[in-house]
Amino acid sequence: MHTLAVTDGRVLRPDGRVTTDDVLIDADAGTIEAIGPDLEGDEVLDASGGLVMPGLVNAHTHVSMTLLRGYADDKPLDAWLREDIWPVEEELTDDDIEAGAELGVLEMIRSGTTAFADMYFAMDRVADVVERAGVRARLGRGIVTVGKDHEEARADLEDGVEFATTYDGAADGRIHTAVMPHSLTTVEESILEEAADLAAAHDLPVHLHANETESEVDPIVSERGIRPIEYADDRGVLGPSSFLAHGVHLDDSEIARLAERGTAVVHCPASNMKLASGIAPVQRLREAGVTVGIGTDGAASNNDLDLFDEMRDAAMVGKLAAADASAVPAPAVVEMATSGGAEAIGVPGGRIEAGAAADLIVVDLESPHLTPAHDLVSHLAYAVRGSDVRHTVCDGSVLMRDREVTTLDADAVMERAGSVAADLVARAE
Amino acid sequence: MHTLAVTDGRVLRPDGRVTTDDVLIDADAGTIEAIGPDLEGDEVLDASGGLVMPGLVNAHTHVSMTLLRGYADDKPLDAWLREDIWPVEEELTDDDIEAGAELGVLEMIRSGTTAFADMYFAMDRVADVVERAGVRARLGRGIVTVGKDHEEARADLEDGVEFATTYDGAADGRIHTAVMPHSLTTVEESILEEAADLAAAHDLPVHLHANETESEVDPIVSERGIRPIEYADDRGVLGPSSFLAHGVHLDDSEIARLAERGTAVVHCPASNMKLASGIAPVQRLREAGVTVGIGTDGAASNNDLDLFDEMRDAAMVGKLAAADASAVPAPAVVEMATSGGAEAIGVPGGRIEAGAAADLIVVDLESPHLTPAHDLVSHLAYAVRGSDVRHTVCDGSVLMRDREVTTLDADAVMERAGSVAADLVARAE
Repeated sequence: MHTLAVTDGRVLRPDGRVTTDDVLIDADAGTIEAIGPDLEGDEVLDASGGLVMPGLVNAHTHVSMTLLRGYADDKPLDAWLREDIWPVEEELTDDDIEAGAELGVLEMIRSGTTAFADMYFAMDRVADVVERAGVRARLGRGIVTVGKDHEEARADLEDGVEFATTYDGAADGRIHTAVMPHSLTTVEESILEEAADLAAAHDLPVHLHANETESEVDPIVSERGIRPIEYADDRGVLGPSSFLAHGVHLDDSEIARLAERGTAVVHCPASNMKLASGIAPVQRLREAGVTVGIGTDGAASNNDLDLFDEMRDAAMVGKLAAADASAVPAPAVVEMATSGGAEAIGVPGGRIEAGAAADLIVVDLESPHLTPAHDLVSHLAYAVRGSDVRHTVCDGSVLMRDREVTTLDADAVMERAGSVAADLVARAE
Repeated sequence: MHTLAVTDGRVLRPDGRVTTDDVLIDADAGTIEAIGPDLEGDEVLDASGGLVMPGLVNAHTHVSMTLLRGYADDKPLDAWLREDIWPVEEELTDDDIEAGAELGVLEMIRSGTTAFADMYFAMDRVADVVERAGVRARLGRGIVTVGKDHEEARADLEDGVEFATTYDGAADGRIHTAVMPHSLTTVEESILEEAADLAAAHDLPVHLHANETESEVDPIVSERGIRPIEYADDRGVLGPSSFLAHGVHLDDSEIARLAERGTAVVHCPASNMKLASGIAPVQRLREAGVTVGIGTDGAASNNDLDLFDEMRDAAMVGKLAAADASAVPAPAVVEMATSGGAEAIGVPGGRIEAGAAADLIVVDLESPHLTPAHDLVSHLAYAVRGSDVRHTVCDGSVLMRDREVTTLDADAVMERAGSVAADLVARAE
């Protein structure tokens, strides 16, 4: 057994306590072996002056869209998609998607994210990046049927299911998959039902966008006379492994339905603000017992993949939505970004405890902006940012040591992404 | 003339264009001498791979409250003040205030802020820190009369006016002052009027909190039958040099009145979200022609002094408030954080142009989270953070070079602040 000792730091425990301990990792098994004083390992990761905490889980993103960071801002969702994003996406090659995934995964490792859920295209190329970079992910090909005839729509579904069944368990189990119909309004009813059936048959989760904007809710209500979550449930989409992105416009009956089915919601506060979609009722969802994770959505509507930013956004905007400054407190956002996110997307990690997956990060605490240290959990929610992450460990392997990413060549990734993005935009214009 | 050349970077011009130029600074005069190719100076500041832009202006804060960062979170404004903040503030010594100011100014220099407006107590000690640290500030003693008899209230006013008249122009002109009655509900009517009269007599601005929460608006409306901005105007508080913090709850008549009087508003989006106060109508204020700056408020309700965070918050939440994703676009937040803020608080700076004050920063652009570079102004609003600032220059002097602050000893400041904060909290409990 090859071991890694994370030494001399403070440790954030699952119950919110912060203790002064070492953490011993079984690097072969990828698990936490022990937590306690004076642990020795074959290899040492210095955590002095730092906090050892679970790696963050970005529970909804489109990592390859990092290529479009800052390409089009300050426009509403519909116009932004139609005028800017979709025309560029039509020009995307598989190589572009890989380059974008490398850039996004690099940014996530540097800002403390060890696992993410991703919906996009050419997902074999994204899976390749996940394998090389050493992170954990739940991946799925986005299935969209709008503007397609039934045969094309079925082909899309088959591609999605083929990717999911082929890649589930890849990269020594770090890659998980899901069947990912894009949304309730961009996938035709029969394909949505088939997607849910096939996911169940293969024991895979369903992941989709839901209730993001009012313009997505209204047609379902007016055409079918029911709310979107009821429609989704009737199609068989909801269940204990399913997870929905956004959930901005949810009424009480929908929240109750999600709680009853055990379906998780991924809160994407920055994207929902930036596209003026609204604010998800996170406090009400949590009170109803719904598991809530946090996602950045794509960098084109954020514009970064720093989950610490997103935690701060979640805490801030949660108070606005509830008109209550005690809503969505610091411990809740830390939980949503770690164990809540891991549970929502169904991956290991999210807890520093013996036997858990060794997905953890060390956050530097000795900075002016983190002084004084009245409350470290408050700092995680409100003051820490991705650039404070010193080391990143996933599945027992060190992915970043002293801010140097070990599994990707940062300069090469940035150069490739910059060049690919410039070519892509030139082709689309 | 001693000159400083900021070389090989890109330069953000006042009209929003980004050019590739050097910037030559007359360090003795503290002004920008020239912008153009191949400029040579006695001293060089390398801006290669970076963007030269105006230093940021934090237009409303209480810098010494940095000592209380994370001390009490997730509570509404009234309870937070009564139960947590005021009891600790009663224990504050002048030394504590100086230690907190050092910590906050250190954090601001490191995150690219070169000027700030501050309202607090023991302002001579804050002024001392401003002088030593090399930043620019508009300072004022907070005048509060609630719970005081008329003699005590007058003494408070006199202290405030004495500080303002004594320190205006100090630190070679880097220190400006104002008369700062705390708010419309915490200062009695006659003292508010006297404060306005004395400010006018001494040609000083008035700065105060206004329309921050509904619970501050309601008593004025119910007791006086007029809105707070009308009440303020009747007391003589408004005018072209005055600036108000928050302005969350403003109706159209109040916005029109502010525009008419030329009174600026300082938007504090993070604090207003965190205390669930609401969202200021920034888009409507700007459309009405009101000058808007951006402030962090104190770190106890934020919990940092990073104005890049605040710019992102302003862009995000501005869209929510207007229910329009095109509201408060990236160029607007950059303007509010630079020239708008400088204008709001009445200090030089905010523009990179010949003759302007040499208050500028260099932002590193070569990071994964700033790749690709479709639009640098978008990056400034949505993706850059304080830790990307490489150099900070104020009044022609280098305050931070390659992330090393030159005017304050960062380790000593953090150690002092940590120890002082722990003692302070122990005394209050």
